[in-house]
Amino acid sequence: MSATIHRLDQRPAPSLDPMVALIAADMNLVNAVILDRMQSDIPLIPTLAGHLIAGGGKRMRPMLTLASAKLLGYTGSRHHRLAAAVEFIHTATLLHDDVVDGSDLRRGKRTANLIWGNPASVLVGDFLFSRSFELMVEDGSLKVLKILSSASAIIAEGEVNQLTAARRIDTPEERYLDIIVAKTAALFAAACKIAAVVAERSEAEEAALDAYGRNLGVAFQLVDDAIDYVSDADTMGKDAGDDFRDGKATLPVILAYARGNAEDRTFWKAAIEGHRASDADFAHALDLVRATRAIDDTLARARHYGQRAIDALAIFPNGKAKDAMVEAVDFAIARAF
Amino acid sequence: MSATIHRLDQRPAPSLDPMVALIAADMNLVNAVILDRMQSDIPLIPTLAGHLIAGGGKRMRPMLTLASAKLLGYTGSRHHRLAAAVEFIHTATLLHDDVVDGSDLRRGKRTANLIWGNPASVLVGDFLFSRSFELMVEDGSLKVLKILSSASAIIAEGEVNQLTAARRIDTPEERYLDIIVAKTAALFAAACKIAAVVAERSEAEEAALDAYGRNLGVAFQLVDDAIDYVSDADTMGKDAGDDFRDGKATLPVILAYARGNAEDRTFWKAAIEGHRASDADFAHALDLVRATRAIDDTLARARHYGQRAIDALAIFPNGKAKDAMVEAVDFAIARAF
Repeated sequence: MSATIHRLDQRPAPSLDPMVALIAADMNLVNAVILDRMQSDIPLIPTLAGHLIAGGGKRMRPMLTLASAKLLGYTGSRHHRLAAAVEFIHTATLLHDDVVDGSDLRRGKRTANLIWGNPASVLVGDFLFSRSFELMVEDGSLKVLKILSSASAIIAEGEVNQLTAARRIDTPEERYLDIIVAKTAALFAAACKIAAVVAERSEAEEAALDAYGRNLGVAFQLVDDAIDYVSDADTMGKDAGDDFRDGKATLPVILAYARGNAEDRTFWKAAIEGHRASDADFAHALDLVRATRAIDDTLARARHYGQRAIDALAIFPNGKAKDAMVEAVDFAIARAF
Repeated sequence: MSATIHRLDQRPAPSLDPMVALIAADMNLVNAVILDRMQSDIPLIPTLAGHLIAGGGKRMRPMLTLASAKLLGYTGSRHHRLAAAVEFIHTATLLHDDVVDGSDLRRGKRTANLIWGNPASVLVGDFLFSRSFELMVEDGSLKVLKILSSASAIIAEGEVNQLTAARRIDTPEERYLDIIVAKTAALFAAACKIAAVVAERSEAEEAALDAYGRNLGVAFQLVDDAIDYVSDADTMGKDAGDDFRDGKATLPVILAYARGNAEDRTFWKAAIEGHRASDADFAHALDLVRATRAIDDTLARARHYGQRAIDALAIFPNGKAKDAMVEAVDFAIARAF
């Protein structure tokens, strides 16, 4: 797929750059908090945490906290510490995810569990998770603590839900949605919502930012799951076919299975159960998702949630911050191509 | 070893029964919170958590919160929810520990990771950890949140410290002490201290309960580590020799190594590095710890910390609660025989 086929209009490709520029000064302060608070007298902790934290992630979630604060005209500094807490929760989740999935590549680098082993990844994840709560306690808002502790419990539930759905071709789309709302969208929502708490804005504004983050998170994850059937390791820093080989019933698979003939369904069942995991099998899977328009429709679903995210911003004044947040949604969806 | 050899006096063996009786009614309420809050729409979560939570643990840490509250004459109900939070932190730690150690037996039962796999144990641990923070947030005391989030970070640091000391025969006693203070004593201390916060008592009383819990925790872990070179699976629900085979440089090993001759040291180095792990090797290890009085002196160290725990209670009025807390220390030490 190339950009010229799918973008018929003459607009430039959407970019995260406006959001990055909007919050660049704040992000430097967040990074300082992150670097400071991942330290420990136990040398393996900053070494392992730093590998992932310095490893080229986009800092999407703390960026959302910062951008939301800008949108609200917040001029204080509490959001720096809280954005770092959000990133620590996310980093802890990634460390544990890579153990759960047995992953060996993340953001184009070898995973921490591959380098230092699963035990270290589990324990350093626990450390970062505890540290994130210490940061929140220092901030002192029980409301923020409630939002982020609840999001953390929901993330863990979503991960367990995903684990028990693994290698099950009969996973319904509704369950898949429950999983991605929990494992991805809940933290996006919380990251945005806490900005409204810190800025002491109305419940309506809290709810709007929650909705923006939640819908963006769903769109983001849908696109991620589509990319697994599109990209290659060179372009995305992620092995294409990882989800396929892990037997994850993501939406591209769910749709291709639902729309396939008996022979296709037999293939998908065997593949998701782990009996068809060769490169040739993955090539065949790519043919099937294309033939059934499963990727196109996964992205159509993503656009639906993306549009809801954008519409949730209607109550906020127009301006650079809002423009950047709208374009971030477009970027989240367009990055599949 | 038998009780008659080591207890020459005529006092009955110390027991946890007085403490259990003291807080029985409260513990029923704590258990109700635990059962209620380990529920989830994802069935694997209560199944896996329940396996460990219902699995015959003594509930030592929540018991300490409840006993400390009794000692202070606290008559409210906030400590029930917080004691459940403490137990959830502990349970999450156990689930992750068993993954880290690859354990197959805990409290005489097969471990959760053996039954449901490492990924499920990691994620359900994360869930319980998040749930513990939700419980604290519901209580609403930032001071309690600070104490327990700090303890959680220290536990994780201690676990990483232990991991990086594994299979290193050159671990000094000071480092071993750092490890057990962090991984065990920090939560004992926090469990006791939060009772003083809830009861709104002085800093001196907070500090005294912290000291009681911390010293008891060190004594408790020292005895645990001694038991690994004494007990068998039938009597303790723990495989004797687990630490030996995992290459953990616990105090019995550190002392036996320090006091051994060149040949003994060669044996210990090879054993802790994993090259001497047979039953015959473990039998030889038992001979060496006995010959060097390493177990006796590990227990002497435990008595030292136990005495400090008891002396920390001096500022509190005499009575049933204090008696039970003193006897719990004696029990923690005497259970090795």
